[in-house]
Amino acid sequence: MTKKIPEQSGTAFQLKKGEYLKVIDPKGQQVSDMVLFNANDPREKLSSGKSLDFEENIFLTTGNQLWSNRSQPMMKIVEDTNGRNDFLLAPCSPETFEIMYEYEGYHPSCFENLYTNLAPFGIEPDQIPNAFNIFMNVQVKEDGKISVEPPLSKAGDYILFEAQMDLIVGLTACSAEDSNGGTFKPIHFEIITA
Amino acid sequence: MTKKIPEQSGTAFQLKKGEYLKVIDPKGQQVSDMVLFNANDPREKLSSGKSLDFEENIFLTTGNQLWSNRSQPMMKIVEDTNGRNDFLLAPCSPETFEIMYEYEGYHPSCFENLYTNLAPFGIEPDQIPNAFNIFMNVQVKEDGKISVEPPLSKAGDYILFEAQMDLIVGLTACSAEDSNGGTFKPIHFEIITA
Repeated sequence: MTKKIPEQSGTAFQLKKGEYLKVIDPKGQQVSDMVLFNANDPREKLSSGKSLDFEENIFLTTGNQLWSNRSQPMMKIVEDTNGRNDFLLAPCSPETFEIMYEYEGYHPSCFENLYTNLAPFGIEPDQIPNAFNIFMNVQVKEDGKISVEPPLSKAGDYILFEAQMDLIVGLTACSAEDSNGGTFKPIHFEIITA
Repeated sequence: MTKKIPEQSGTAFQLKKGEYLKVIDPKGQQVSDMVLFNANDPREKLSSGKSLDFEENIFLTTGNQLWSNRSQPMMKIVEDTNGRNDFLLAPCSPETFEIMYEYEGYHPSCFENLYTNLAPFGIEPDQIPNAFNIFMNVQVKEDGKISVEPPLSKAGDYILFEAQMDLIVGLTACSAEDSNGGTFKPIHFEIITA
């Protein structure tokens, strides 16, 4: 069954070891931030630093694994029809819009959409790690300069993950203008039991 | 007064807002991993994702700031005579040597040297974030491939930070062969009160 995350919102759910998670960009050019916690001990969580180190690449795609702060594999990327994801940048937060975009007033953010949906699992805002930013198109120049470009994903592109431990998953339809080609779209997902 | 961190070890200490920390590579080609916590609430800590996002560069040096998971500035880099630091990779841990180097038996690691020295401050291993890896020379190719090269730092190179909040600092002389040109050297540091 396909579940839908409305634009600029998020969700959280459990995923058992061996189950698959398919994250779909139904309209194209829409980012989804994902964070992971060990369902049996949420102090173990997704680590960008461990993942980039073990996978020896900043752009993770089919065949790569996502690792925890305890150096355990959390998910394997089984398929990735778009092939461009980011693992450098933190989820957009209220301060992202204040500091980087000089936006005034309330703005939805992945950070808020993650911590509010993860709260029922006992996870606090300070525990949110760097997210795996699905479909996010971050370019890095030779001098290290970062730019956030519109996603390359087209309608129907998806990424398929296999859970390698029992997980709590936080997942959003990203709220930042610059990350999503200027418009906000939903994200769809499916949980597939092997 | 210059303090010395022996090879393959670490330390932790408090640094007040407005104080300066000078981290020195006395012999050259030696990495030092640094993690930061808010001394008044250690749930606030260094965030690579927020720092790379706000500074818009993966290679941080003079003029850049290090940011927390609550989007607050923790330190400013005032001087950096070497100019090459890494903020992509997690501190080396026992698993780094098992998984990446197929090393058997006990091996000292930055992760152990950070959490054992930070324990008296009430900080647990799971709270250790991605470190700011001073003098670490990580190269990133256009296709995203990462390689760890010998540091470019020469004897006497240093980096000077200004604390922007009251901090608990964890600091090491890195224990990984590949990160340090194959030999282990000490790291020196000074705390300078303005």
